[in-house]
Amino acid sequence: MSFKTGKIAEQTKLSAGIFGLLDCTIVLKMEAESQMREIKYAADISSIKESQARIKPFIHETPVLSSETLNLLSGRQLFFKCECFQKGGAFKFRGACNAVFSLDDDQAAKGVVTHSRFSSGSFLWMVIWSEPTMQSRESTAAKVLQETGAVLLHPYNDRRIISGQGTISLELLEQQVPHLDAIVVPISGGGLISGVALAAKSINPAIRVFAAEPEGANDAAQSKEAGRIITLSETNTVADGLRAFLGDLTWPIVRDLVDGIITVEDKEIINAMKLCYEILKVAVEPSGAIGLAAVLSDSFKNNPAWKDCTNIGIILSGGNVDLGIIWDSYTK
Amino acid sequence: MSFKTGKIAEQTKLSAGIFGLLDCTIVLKMEAESQMREIKYAADISSIKESQARIKPFIHETPVLSSETLNLLSGRQLFFKCECFQKGGAFKFRGACNAVFSLDDDQAAKGVVTHSRFSSGSFLWMVIWSEPTMQSRESTAAKVLQETGAVLLHPYNDRRIISGQGTISLELLEQQVPHLDAIVVPISGGGLISGVALAAKSINPAIRVFAAEPEGANDAAQSKEAGRIITLSETNTVADGLRAFLGDLTWPIVRDLVDGIITVEDKEIINAMKLCYEILKVAVEPSGAIGLAAVLSDSFKNNPAWKDCTNIGIILSGGNVDLGIIWDSYTK
Repeated sequence: MSFKTGKIAEQTKLSAGIFGLLDCTIVLKMEAESQMREIKYAADISSIKESQARIKPFIHETPVLSSETLNLLSGRQLFFKCECFQKGGAFKFRGACNAVFSLDDDQAAKGVVTHSRFSSGSFLWMVIWSEPTMQSRESTAAKVLQETGAVLLHPYNDRRIISGQGTISLELLEQQVPHLDAIVVPISGGGLISGVALAAKSINPAIRVFAAEPEGANDAAQSKEAGRIITLSETNTVADGLRAFLGDLTWPIVRDLVDGIITVEDKEIINAMKLCYEILKVAVEPSGAIGLAAVLSDSFKNNPAWKDCTNIGIILSGGNVDLGIIWDSYTK
Repeated sequence: MSFKTGKIAEQTKLSAGIFGLLDCTIVLKMEAESQMREIKYAADISSIKESQARIKPFIHETPVLSSETLNLLSGRQLFFKCECFQKGGAFKFRGACNAVFSLDDDQAAKGVVTHSRFSSGSFLWMVIWSEPTMQSRESTAAKVLQETGAVLLHPYNDRRIISGQGTISLELLEQQVPHLDAIVVPISGGGLISGVALAAKSINPAIRVFAAEPEGANDAAQSKEAGRIITLSETNTVADGLRAFLGDLTWPIVRDLVDGIITVEDKEIINAMKLCYEILKVAVEPSGAIGLAAVLSDSFKNNPAWKDCTNIGIILSGGNVDLGIIWDSYTK
């Protein structure tokens, strides 16, 4: 195990650090039970509005881009909410920021441990590498927690994270875009789409929220079909940010509030990433471009129930692009 | 000579076409003399405000991005005005749009001929290829003009073009950015920086306007030094959009209102392009990234006269990226 210390990119009142545990898959039961007794879902419009007020000074208000060419290609009016321009290059900063600023002083002093495919943010943070095995990840996490007394923060199955991600749709619906009929959101563990769906449907119950998911990691589609959380023994997709499975807090929201899950093949995802690059001029990773792939897919275009979705918001995130993927698609 | 017809990407009231002549270097004397007698420069804040009202329905209001990482690297607060997200992928759409909508019905019916390294826009347009020789370009242009009766529009040495480009700084200074001490603008023929300088200094006479120019095409720097327009027998730079020379309308504005010309080497331009891609998540061509290269250059950082430029606007444009340039820089 080796330690690499990141740079301080932002001055905040928080003296504690966020410790990022890469490639670690511990799943925590947070305050789930107690919350679920009082409210139907793990978060709601109030917790999302509170998050918005809390994180506003620390986040970027990300712009919405549009393109006549992509409108023509899709046959819809598309509004791209560019969370790839968020601090840290992805929407994840919102939830992390909300969670950290929700801590009391005592917790904050001890720090936070979370895990991610790529942990990023603008706080003081420290990346701790573990061996890519479950045993190593668990022992590394346990060791850091024991040594630091830090709070363990689940990357998506957490009220504070869901609420933070939900600020995206609050912000989108407040921006100068026409009335939206639908929002398309990448789905992985469900934190992002849970927050987006809770906020958007609270503001406009008629709005539809669609998940975009890779064929090779279609656990959410299978879960919706089966009516319970399905996990997969393996996943296989270029969208490596979308390999997580639903949690017990995100699943009820996805089950009840997500109007459809659009699965797309890797070649459709790569094509969408290229279109983002060539037409929108935005660098977005496969996991972040999947929303565009979904609205361009035959299954979406040909679904008669969704024909009336004229104005569609698409969440683009994040920006950790492996340039080689685009390059290979040109040269192979 | 062959003809290729582009697609219609935008419905406008204009029935005429813009004919784009690629790689053609005819320089026109427009209404220069008559204008110069009445006003000091070819355009002014009034013509720029008129342009803004004229083109507003047809252009994108482009977002301003910022990055703590790039602020740290530069030692300043940088505000990136992303004209690479403009329709057609560059600021040029503003000037072209203003010029076309300034035509009377009779002129509009006959169309407009202009020339550019890469002619783009969202009108009905037609690309006419000529041989890459001066003789061929001139004869091709003359033939098209004779056949169509079209208006010949200079790509930068024109009041309407300068006024259209000037709307960028009006827009930037109206957006939610702090008080700017300076704006850094790529310089080629001077249309963009002329408009930007006229508008910005009219709003805030203390603001400084800097040009960013490649070492291998430093005609503007030489012109400022010599006090007259200098043209070069050859240019050599990766920023192939910045090879044009100042015109008789842009030169007086550059001479009087541009506070400094920062020349940078190609390797600095490529590095800036990579930073835009990796950190801002924006696809921008070398010519468009040069403003960032300028503020990161030693000559800018170490100039004591410019130390007090804390908040700096940088115009990023355009987005016609040859991916191979970035890729090569990683692999070589």
